[in-house]
Amino acid sequence: MKIGVVAKIDSNRSLKLSKEIIEFLLERDIEVCLDSPISANFPEYEDLEVQLNDMDADMVITLGGDGTVLRTQSFIREKKIPILSINMGSLGFLTEVEPEDTFKCLEEVLNNNYFIEKRTGLKVTHGGELQSALNEVVVMTQQPAKMLHIEISVDEEVVEELRADGIIISTSSGSTAYSMSAGGPIVDPRVGAFLIVPICPFKLGARPWVVSEDSVIKIKLLKKGKNAVAVIDGQYQEELTYLEEIIFQKSEKPNYFVKLSSGFYKKVREKLAAGGI
Amino acid sequence: MKIGVVAKIDSNRSLKLSKEIIEFLLERDIEVCLDSPISANFPEYEDLEVQLNDMDADMVITLGGDGTVLRTQSFIREKKIPILSINMGSLGFLTEVEPEDTFKCLEEVLNNNYFIEKRTGLKVTHGGELQSALNEVVVMTQQPAKMLHIEISVDEEVVEELRADGIIISTSSGSTAYSMSAGGPIVDPRVGAFLIVPICPFKLGARPWVVSEDSVIKIKLLKKGKNAVAVIDGQYQEELTYLEEIIFQKSEKPNYFVKLSSGFYKKVREKLAAGGI
Amino acid sequence: MKIGVVAKIDSNRSLKLSKEIIEFLLERDIEVCLDSPISANFPEYEDLEVQLNDMDADMVITLGGDGTVLRTQSFIREKKIPILSINMGSLGFLTEVEPEDTFKCLEEVLNNNYFIEKRTGLKVTHGGELQSALNEVVVMTQQPAKMLHIEISVDEEVVEELRADGIIISTSSGSTAYSMSAGGPIVDPRVGAFLIVPICPFKLGARPWVVSEDSVIKIKLLKKGKNAVAVIDGQYQEELTYLEEIIFQKSEKPNYFVKLSSGFYKKVREKLAAGGI
Amino acid sequence: MKIGVVAKIDSNRSLKLSKEIIEFLLERDIEVCLDSPISANFPEYEDLEVQLNDMDADMVITLGGDGTVLRTQSFIREKKIPILSINMGSLGFLTEVEPEDTFKCLEEVLNNNYFIEKRTGLKVTHGGELQSALNEVVVMTQQPAKMLHIEISVDEEVVEELRADGIIISTSSGSTAYSMSAGGPIVDPRVGAFLIVPICPFKLGARPWVVSEDSVIKIKLLKKGKNAVAVIDGQYQEELTYLEEIIFQKSEKPNYFVKLSSGFYKKVREKLAAGGI
Repeated sequence: MKIGVVAKIDSNRSLKLSKEIIEFLLERDIEVCLDSPISANFPEYEDLEVQLNDMDADMVITLGGDGTVLRTQSFIREKKIPILSINMGSLGFLTEVEPEDTFKCLEEVLNNNYFIEKRTGLKVTHGGELQSALNEVVVMTQQPAKMLHIEISVDEEVVEELRADGIIISTSSGSTAYSMSAGGPIVDPRVGAFLIVPICPFKLGARPWVVSEDSVIKIKLLKKGKNAVAVIDGQYQEELTYLEEIIFQKSEKPNYFVKLSSGFYKKVREKLAAGGI
Repeated sequence: MKIGVVAKIDSNRSLKLSKEIIEFLLERDIEVCLDSPISANFPEYEDLEVQLNDMDADMVITLGGDGTVLRTQSFIREKKIPILSINMGSLGFLTEVEPEDTFKCLEEVLNNNYFIEKRTGLKVTHGGELQSALNEVVVMTQQPAKMLHIEISVDEEVVEELRADGIIISTSSGSTAYSMSAGGPIVDPRVGAFLIVPICPFKLGARPWVVSEDSVIKIKLLKKGKNAVAVIDGQYQEELTYLEEIIFQKSEKPNYFVKLSSGFYKKVREKLAAGGI
Repeated sequence: MKIGVVAKIDSNRSLKLSKEIIEFLLERDIEVCLDSPISANFPEYEDLEVQLNDMDADMVITLGGDGTVLRTQSFIREKKIPILSINMGSLGFLTEVEPEDTFKCLEEVLNNNYFIEKRTGLKVTHGGELQSALNEVVVMTQQPAKMLHIEISVDEEVVEELRADGIIISTSSGSTAYSMSAGGPIVDPRVGAFLIVPICPFKLGARPWVVSEDSVIKIKLLKKGKNAVAVIDGQYQEELTYLEEIIFQKSEKPNYFVKLSSGFYKKVREKLAAGGI
Repeated sequence: MKIGVVAKIDSNRSLKLSKEIIEFLLERDIEVCLDSPISANFPEYEDLEVQLNDMDADMVITLGGDGTVLRTQSFIREKKIPILSINMGSLGFLTEVEPEDTFKCLEEVLNNNYFIEKRTGLKVTHGGELQSALNEVVVMTQQPAKMLHIEISVDEEVVEELRADGIIISTSSGSTAYSMSAGGPIVDPRVGAFLIVPICPFKLGARPWVVSEDSVIKIKLLKKGKNAVAVIDGQYQEELTYLEEIIFQKSEKPNYFVKLSSGFYKKVREKLAAGGI
């Protein structure tokens, strides 16, 4: 087995845990390869350095926040390498493992007690193709408390026209992240669906919509002079202007994640309880 | 083309419209067959009488409310005969056409401007198999304002345990009916999903769940002495007692409906506007 | 100081705790008077028996559920005697103290660390005057899953006409009970307001209303043949029929409760956390 | 009777309507005084010019949007002069009359068919005293889709600590504006209350709170590095940083508005219907 390690080295805590993971794996005769920011910190492991671009492994462990997961994913997705992500940030929507559980989880992985989840991504087009989303894209007003005027279409049919602070287009796996805060339902990842959830709609009757993941969703700004920003997975921003369309559909390239338990509902319950949700 | 006509003859209005429909079809050289309560009222069409059991047609028109749709469906579903339903009741959740639009719609049908929608039903098991549901099953307390204590499982995994007035298990097509009143999202019928929506949950964090239509959903009453009733499509009732399970899954037999427009979202918008929703 | 004790003697647990409370109070030289069901169980305290009707005390301790609180309140309210209620039922919406905290609370009371809360009740008129409500009145359909057609007026002005399973009229103090399950806001008891909260409204735009406690609220059933039941504080039921009005307004007689902490928000947070809300 | 006219002269439409109003009033022998931007446009009425500062009248008519109402209010509130506001913007939350209804309304006013509503404002303190709010103050994250970590206190008691996009503090009259979009209840203006409504709370159990208008509400940012902005009535902005408090309480100076109908509920229903809510 060969495992890659990628880390955002921004604290002693990350540095220390990276080292412990490398030692843990090497002691167990696992082949290890390291992203350059890690090897730069550990001259003793210089030989294990591989460009993220060229990393070829059975799985990649990431240490960092959601940004680290997304950045790594963009390099290794094509090779279908699954990610096991350790959350070094405050609130990780894409990360899987809390730091204190790292070695318990690695034991499980080495004992083959894991499975690989294939997650549908959201391809985002605005002019050209943007970074694709794992959880959601939020189209928001750029001026706090100033509403957008939005037209939502699904497969060329207008679904709704509404004034709102913004709108969320979410994958099934994103249903327990930002979408939930805006009032969206919790969607089992086995359901092939996208969610459309308005944020503070100025229309009492507005409801979340659940649409097929084979549909093409379009959002258009109807009001001149009010610019919006599209935020992808809380990380990437893209500005939108009047009458421009931003288009969402199933990404051709799925994402692969290492999962230690298949209990979706148990996990949601735990997450809700722990996160004070 | 052969069209069956089924009606709940409970008013002059139904009787009159039935007659007009029969005449309209015969004038256009459509072969017509009539359910016995209709032919009993029109001696001149006695020859067209067929037992609903034996009815064989390209489509069946029903005049009545949701009960008439469900009763007819139970007879003709196996033969995959689609239903075109005219709403003679006050608020039809399963009916398609308002009486005043009858002949406009029939013209469309005869001009071949229609399509057949295949709708997943919900198989309901409580001891034996009950009537299957087209829209939803509501498991409710029998004493107003006395909560049930409910355990919900999906594929043998416990999803949630909660105290609530009741719980709705809905199909995608049922998402615009009762489920919506209880706060459920609107689901495109192309999404293969069931909804689990709590009614007045005494738990602030309770949310609607969207689960795969390949899942098996179980509801169990955890509290002794509080009986519940399961109401199927607002028509059939079944009592439930302590620790008994009621099980929901995809029905093997889909249901077929004649649809005049493929615009799901347009239809929802119209329905919401018209129904004062 | 003189303290009355009222109990629903339906279990050994109630009997045992009643005895312990009496002993605790007598040991501390508090004058005690007992409702007859208690004294009937303890011949040694026969002399302390007083009819609930005639009970005159500085406060009354109740052991039981919400029903015991309401029954006792109806006898002593006129005399403005405050109640300290110990919850012997499963889920008490009106009770204040859990059994395990009884003696800690009594110590606080004897040390004068308590205050008396004056709570506005809801006077309910349907034909004659009914039992008044401390938390809420729920007007519900009697047939599960069959909607009522309701007209709501405030001070003779129609607020809304809607189809729904039911409607809740709640006091401020009732805002953390049933009203909350139906989506109502949490209201500080210092706000002089009543809540009107629809249950499963078939109208996407329906919202909870907060109205002045000086207003007169009327509910009328608009649809023939669908009877409803009004449930007062989860205990008393009254049937309603077509076009009849049920009227809600501030009760002339407030209710008095012994409170051990003035922290409304702390209490709500604890209640929400404990009750699994 | 003496009527002041204030207008935001930003279009021919405003200019034309101002002129018509002046003529309408003068023809009916009403004394008129004009804010300088109007008189500057009409040399023939130069004599009627008065500084807004010095304007003394029985009522002031404003032509413009919410900004014009707020600006005028800040000058004339001390003198208790009521405002009759004509909406020249797109969506007025504070304006009363649509342009096409101007003269019908003026007739009503001259026939004495109006009343004066006294509206509680929200005094906002952040360091010093800011502009006070008529509808609401929104404390929002400055980075779209990045949550704030907020502590809410009422009368020095912590109500809730939550992560959310923002929070709304609203007056009763503001309950039908932005607060409603975020899920707040509709509050009768006769209720002396403020609303606290979270925006996209990352906590399933978060609910709107209704607190007494005699309470002092404090909002504090708990998370370093995430700045927020407070937006007052959608018009004025103030930046907030880590651990700073922003304080809300009843303004000592109420606001006075000319109202043509006392039907609060009728008005809400109309507003909801018209605004597509």
